[in-house]
Amino acid sequence: MLQTPPAVPGMREDEIDTPALVVDLDAFEYNLDHMAALLAPTGVKLRAHAKTHKSPVIAKLQMARGAVGQCVQKVAEAEILAWGGIPDILVSNEVVGAQKLARLCALSSIAKAAVCVDDAAQVDAIERAAADSGRRMTVLVEIDVGAARCGVPPGPAAVDLAKKIAASKHLIFGGLQAYQGSAQHKRTIAERQTLIGAAVEGSRRTVEQLRQQGLDCPIVGGAGTGSFQIEAGSGVYTEMQCGSYIFMDADYARNLDADGKPVSTFRHALFVLASVMSAPHTGLAVLDAGHKAVSIDSGMPTIWGKPDIRYVSASDEHGKLDVASETAMPKLGEKLRLVPGHCDPTVDRYDWYVGVRQGRVECLWPVAARGAMA
Amino acid sequence: MLQTPPAVPGMREDEIDTPALVVDLDAFEYNLDHMAALLAPTGVKLRAHAKTHKSPVIAKLQMARGAVGQCVQKVAEAEILAWGGIPDILVSNEVVGAQKLARLCALSSIAKAAVCVDDAAQVDAIERAAADSGRRMTVLVEIDVGAARCGVPPGPAAVDLAKKIAASKHLIFGGLQAYQGSAQHKRTIAERQTLIGAAVEGSRRTVEQLRQQGLDCPIVGGAGTGSFQIEAGSGVYTEMQCGSYIFMDADYARNLDADGKPVSTFRHALFVLASVMSAPHTGLAVLDAGHKAVSIDSGMPTIWGKPDIRYVSASDEHGKLDVASETAMPKLGEKLRLVPGHCDPTVDRYDWYVGVRQGRVECLWPVAARGAMA
Repeated sequence: MLQTPPAVPGMREDEIDTPALVVDLDAFEYNLDHMAALLAPTGVKLRAHAKTHKSPVIAKLQMARGAVGQCVQKVAEAEILAWGGIPDILVSNEVVGAQKLARLCALSSIAKAAVCVDDAAQVDAIERAAADSGRRMTVLVEIDVGAARCGVPPGPAAVDLAKKIAASKHLIFGGLQAYQGSAQHKRTIAERQTLIGAAVEGSRRTVEQLRQQGLDCPIVGGAGTGSFQIEAGSGVYTEMQCGSYIFMDADYARNLDADGKPVSTFRHALFVLASVMSAPHTGLAVLDAGHKAVSIDSGMPTIWGKPDIRYVSASDEHGKLDVASETAMPKLGEKLRLVPGHCDPTVDRYDWYVGVRQGRVECLWPVAARGAMA
Repeated sequence: MLQTPPAVPGMREDEIDTPALVVDLDAFEYNLDHMAALLAPTGVKLRAHAKTHKSPVIAKLQMARGAVGQCVQKVAEAEILAWGGIPDILVSNEVVGAQKLARLCALSSIAKAAVCVDDAAQVDAIERAAADSGRRMTVLVEIDVGAARCGVPPGPAAVDLAKKIAASKHLIFGGLQAYQGSAQHKRTIAERQTLIGAAVEGSRRTVEQLRQQGLDCPIVGGAGTGSFQIEAGSGVYTEMQCGSYIFMDADYARNLDADGKPVSTFRHALFVLASVMSAPHTGLAVLDAGHKAVSIDSGMPTIWGKPDIRYVSASDEHGKLDVASETAMPKLGEKLRLVPGHCDPTVDRYDWYVGVRQGRVECLWPVAARGAMA
């Protein structure tokens, strides 16, 4: 069942039922504007990643500030965006299975939809699906630029796949997908530069070899919130696929600059609001938000504005807090803001965003692609 | 949005769209019957924990085999069960906040609903909510029997709270909540016996002190799949709150008996069906199920029936497989069954159970309390 919204517009923040997914609208809008301002002088485009927000509402706010489209990871996410009016969607991922490919091709009557491949058999499968639907589909080649996950190696293997796409009657070669995910959370700028430097080189080499074969590369896409300024300045990448910048999370905030200071100039805009449900003795309090309510795959959440309180462990429905002193003890029923360790999977646990500005609930937005994993 | 069911009855298992939450009905029914048979000679009752299944359908199957009711952790879960016709529900947890307490009291017109406290202020809050609703509410005292989470210490503090409940006009003292969660996944039987032994002693002492004050203790509830045979034989506990036994998970399967062999006699009945979406080279394959699709808080999933394939790391939407040899390499598009490391939070990621018997889809059941965190 869809969950009931935990608030109504006009409520004070401390009246919101918990756990709740709260967006600080001032910080969120700052982040939207700030990314647009950072990318404007580089000439590269923003194709923001909807895997972070799962929301056509937020996608439209990004596109109103110049984003050329959206990325998704799943066909079910692409459907939610297309049905919500987003006109240009890249599945920045492989899609396997005739059912899913048929659904993706069906979307192309209402939106421009593209997809990635890393195997010749997938090119054949998409060609069949496109032919069956009577549409032409845009297909990118994913190259493995260092994450050692999906993708063919840069160079000849990628060129071979691109040629096969270009030679397929119902397919259009769309370019390269070149995301280096394992660089995003490296703490030092030197590590990130080294890893992204290698990704840029692999991409550049592949683009050149494609040109030698007469194949143009309209999109070279990749980059995330942890690294995009490097890709944007490379002269090779054309589209940035950042997602988390709109919200930030505790883990991205740990990335450092050359002086060892936090590098991000984005603001924390996403919180899980939680209530103290037990305070058995000085030093220990328990929240009603465990790892069902806040993803712990990238570490525990931090407590916003409360340096004397640490979230030390999560069970399914409980979060244990270590409180430094008696004076720092939160009261039973008190509501605290958690900064999630990882925003994308945390958003996926909720049906509703509660938009808050200066302590008041301003709006509710559905997490429309919550659970859209297929 | 509610997700589309990934299958229809009659399909072959390999036709189910992925990722999907699959229940092996033969193993599941075996587990239901097996728990009933194990508890029958002990005289203790089963109040199965619905935090595992989140489903009135499954609750009814448990009650048809003798369970006296259900446990939940959240008011929103209690609502789903009560609306689905379950007549006896214990929120085995503290509930804080006037909104939630009003909702819980409102349920008592269609179901027997009880709740736990570990603070005198909560007794007052529930008394107010019960008085407002014109109902009498049953309230248990949670004692901390070793998990160091919620609960008052066994002994006088618990007796004081019980007396306060019994003296409240609209409240009924229902007994003790005495769950030792931190014992459930201890690997050796000696560790589990030591921890549960201490829980039993704390509970026994508290029950005796309550009797000395003229307070009867109708329920002494606790135990989980990892420890219930110890509590059931204690002579103190009256209700077992096991949940995971219906499905089992990879982590519970690691608990050992006195000979160092797996202790559980329950069968793995819950799987995440996933597809191979990329197979870039021998040794590496990638599934379309990452930690959004299968909870990794208790370790990575295992691959059912494929000892040469290990699930080594999860990102949001990808699972990386380490494959021991070229002959063991799965094919692109091949569907594999994952055994989740932890069943409860994995179930929470899905809107639908797909019930499978001997390779055919037999039924679809909604995960009705998916996301019910409030």
